[in-house]
Parts: sequence; C-alpha cells; structure tokens
Amino acid sequence: MKPLILVSNDDSIESKGIAVLIEAMKSIGEVVVVAPDSHQSGQSHAISVNNLLRIKKSKLFPDILAYECSGTPADCVKIAKHEILKGRKIDLVVSGINHGSNSSISVVYSGTMAAAIEAGIEGIPSIGFSLDDTSSNADFEHTIPYIKDIAMKVLENNENSMILNVNFPAKQEENIKGIKICRQNKGNWIEEFEKRTDLSGRNYFWMGGGFVDYEPTDTTNDVWAVKNNFVSIVPVQFDLTNYNQIQTLNNIF
Amino acid sequence: MKPLILVSNDDSIESKGIAVLIEAMKSIGEVVVVAPDSHQSGQSHAISVNNLLRIKKSKLFPDILAYECSGTPADCVKIAKHEILKGRKIDLVVSGINHGSNSSISVVYSGTMAAAIEAGIEGIPSIGFSLDDTSSNADFEHTIPYIKDIAMKVLENNENSMILNVNFPAKQEENIKGIKICRQNKGNWIEEFEKRTDLSGRNYFWMGGGFVDYEPTDTTNDVWAVKNNFVSIVPVQFDLTNYNQIQTLNNIF
Repeated sequence: MKPLILVSNDDSIESKGIAVLIEAMKSIGEVVVVAPDSHQSGQSHAISVNNLLRIKKSKLFPDILAYECSGTPADCVKIAKHEILKGRKIDLVVSGINHGSNSSISVVYSGTMAAAIEAGIEGIPSIGFSLDDTSSNADFEHTIPYIKDIAMKVLENNENSMILNVNFPAKQEENIKGIKICRQNKGNWIEEFEKRTDLSGRNYFWMGGGFVDYEPTDTTNDVWAVKNNFVSIVPVQFDLTNYNQIQTLNNIF
Repeated sequence: MKPLILVSNDDSIESKGIAVLIEAMKSIGEVVVVAPDSHQSGQSHAISVNNLLRIKKSKLFPDILAYECSGTPADCVKIAKHEILKGRKIDLVVSGINHGSNSSISVVYSGTMAAAIEAGIEGIPSIGFSLDDTSSNADFEHTIPYIKDIAMKVLENNENSMILNVNFPAKQEENIKGIKICRQNKGNWIEEFEKRTDLSGRNYFWMGGGFVDYEPTDTTNDVWAVKNNFVSIVPVQFDLTNYNQIQTLNNIF
C-alpha cells in the first residue's frame, strides 16, 4: 500500500514551492494537501484558539485531495489529522518547500517548521524543506532528487520518529556537494525598525534587519553547510527543557 | 541603580495578570511595559514580517512608561529592545501572568513564553509566569511573593542567562508546597473540531479538545508539580536540535 503523505507549508497553497513538493511526493505515495490560503511566513507555531477555521477544496490540484485552510500551518496539520483524515494513519508530513532558509534561529519563527513540528508532536514523522532563495519564482529543480531521497529514507526509518529541518542552497553553477547532518547554528536576527507616517499622520513601523552568524567558521552547523553548498539536515525536537540548567536552578532555589 | 525590567504578556495589556505582575515588579526595579493591544493567546513565536506595527502610550499605567503594541508578544519584545529602549540595557524581561497554564507542550504554543524566549534569544534573562486558572478574574494573590522571589534570584544570577517557564497552581485552600525545578511534561492536546454553519450556509470549524498527560505518575515534570500544588520552574532553551539523533542520521544518510 502506498504511504499517506500530508503536504503543507507557510507560503500558501499558491506558492511555487508547494507545487514542486507535491509533484515530488506523488512519485512516493498518496498525497493529501492542506495548506494555508494566504501567506503565513513568520507565524511560528501559532494556532487559532480565538478564531474560527474554514477549509475549502482547492482547484489548483484537481487530481488529488487538496484543501486550502484559513488558519496557520500548525492549524493545517491539526485539522488534517483530526478532521479531514480522521481515522486514517498519516505516514509522513512534509512542509515547504519554503521560499527562504529556515536554518539557525529561524526554525523558531518558521511556519514551515511549525507544521513539521506539529506533526512530530502528533507522533508523525515529518520533514520541513526550505530553499535559501526568497524569490517567488525560485529555481527548485536541483532539490527534487534530494527531497525524494530524504522522504524515502524517513519513511523507511519511521521507528525513529524524526522531525527534520532540511535546508537547500540556492541554485548555483556548481552542483550540491551532498548532505550534511548538522546542529542548529547559533545566530540571531538583529532588528531595525523603520518609522513611517500614514496618510492621516499617525506613525507606524516596519520590522527589518539582518541575520548575524555567531559562529561563521564552525563547520558543524546548518548555516555553514548551506553557505558551503551542502544540503543541511538538522534533527529537531520539541522538548524545550534546558536540562543543563536543572542542577544550577536546584542550587539557586 | 535599579534594574530595568520589561514586562509583556499575551493576554493583552488590559488583562488582570499583567497588572499584578507590573505591581510586583515595581518593588524591584524600573518597570517598562510593552504589551499587545489585543488577545494574543496561542500566537506562539509569531512575528509581524508581513504587517506593520503600531505602538501607543497606554493610559492604564500612567506612572510608568507603558505602551500597547498592535503586534504579537515576540514583536513587543523586539520593538521594546530595538526601538523604545534602544541603547539601554534591559536587565530582565518578565511575561504574564498568563491566565492559564503553560506547562508541558503548551510552552510551544504560548505567546507568553514566546516573549520570554525572544528575550533569551536577545541575551536577556527572562521569566514567563502562568497561573493554572483561565478565568479573566483569576486570583493571583498567592503568586506574588513567589514572583518577587524568583525575579530577584534571576537578577542575582544573571550570568546563567536563564529563560524560566514558571507555572502556579490555581488558588486553593491549602498553601503552596514550595518551588519544584522540573522538566517539560510529555503530553499533548488532542483536538476535536466542531463543525458549524454560518448565516449564509457556509461551514466553519472551532478547534477544541483536551490535554492528555502521557506520564501522570512521574514526579519530575511540570504538570505533576502544579497538580500537586507546587510552583513549577522549567529552564527553557531555544536550540531545537535533537542531538540524540545526530548519529542515527549519520548512519541513515
């Protein structure tokens, strides 16, 4: 029997990245899509606890079961599992392909990765795929063989209940050097707020800024890997306990 | 010099919980408030990358610098640090007191904890406080001595750059038994979606469901502690790497 694969993302069901991912997954299993009907970048693990949710059959993928959902990426996975596919076992959740990297601390802000982590919380193996290219018409061609290979391997090793954060370098002249298993880079977005004035004279702000890499020469982290034309894979978990501090806190309190 | 303490939350600047927290912090330091102007529960670590932000001086706390912000809890911390308090060193960020527990997996969905974690990412010691009582008029009186004590101890031990997830039991007849340093409980919200029909005949859903505790007899986790009338403190971190799986993945890929 073909594995049941749920596809979601945060760039919306209309993005190029999800179309590429759906096409790649069709060669592996039965594909069901539940993805946001609008842009949900930076939505992290937000869920609609104070708002209603709507789902609608999508006309974009007429040959498969595909829904657009008014909620966040995490909502999409929840409503797929507990309503749309109720009673069926989902073998794999894939999210993406995100238009833009989700390496380093971006994993915390990412809606793409929240969909994958939500699947992991539900006990479903999952993979978030992201490309280090934010353009809406980015070239994903070089990622397809890797995506199929990684998805197959996660399906074959599902007893390990993996949540993977996979980041691809943008398309370059040189071929990708291969896959590198990494840890999350230590880095941060340093914000700058640009103040503007609206037509009625009230101020508002746009959040901008840039990423700062705190360990640019370390070769074990995902930012280094992608920068050096590797596919980075970071295994992710949702136990946020800082076990190293338990003893310190027992001494303090 | 008095420490500079930033206060935020996710229940909005109008909630009772933040008023209690502000009052408690005034006895310790110089208090600045930047909190959402509307309910942001379940917003997790969402940030406004596709939307403008507005801030407005709040009239609720006329004796201190207090702003309401149109964004998420994480936005509030970012705009406080990089715009409102630009150039000043924030000594502590406290978030809450949340109306409702943020133990176990709720830490992932919580806007209250996202504000604390965002501070941690920015290198600022932080504490998220939550009460296991969701009522808008919850009794916070019994939490106040603990809140002051915990905040003082984090300020005294700031070289450990702590992010603490503190959960209080709801007010009971019996006094709180004390503080217990815990790890994050293994549990999950099992959703049920209630389908309804709107006035124009279209369907929509409300997300409901209940929490399932996977380790009810284990005494080292935060759910057990709060259920047994302890204050639970879990140290939190934002490196999501599942280091235990690195070797497994190196064998598979």
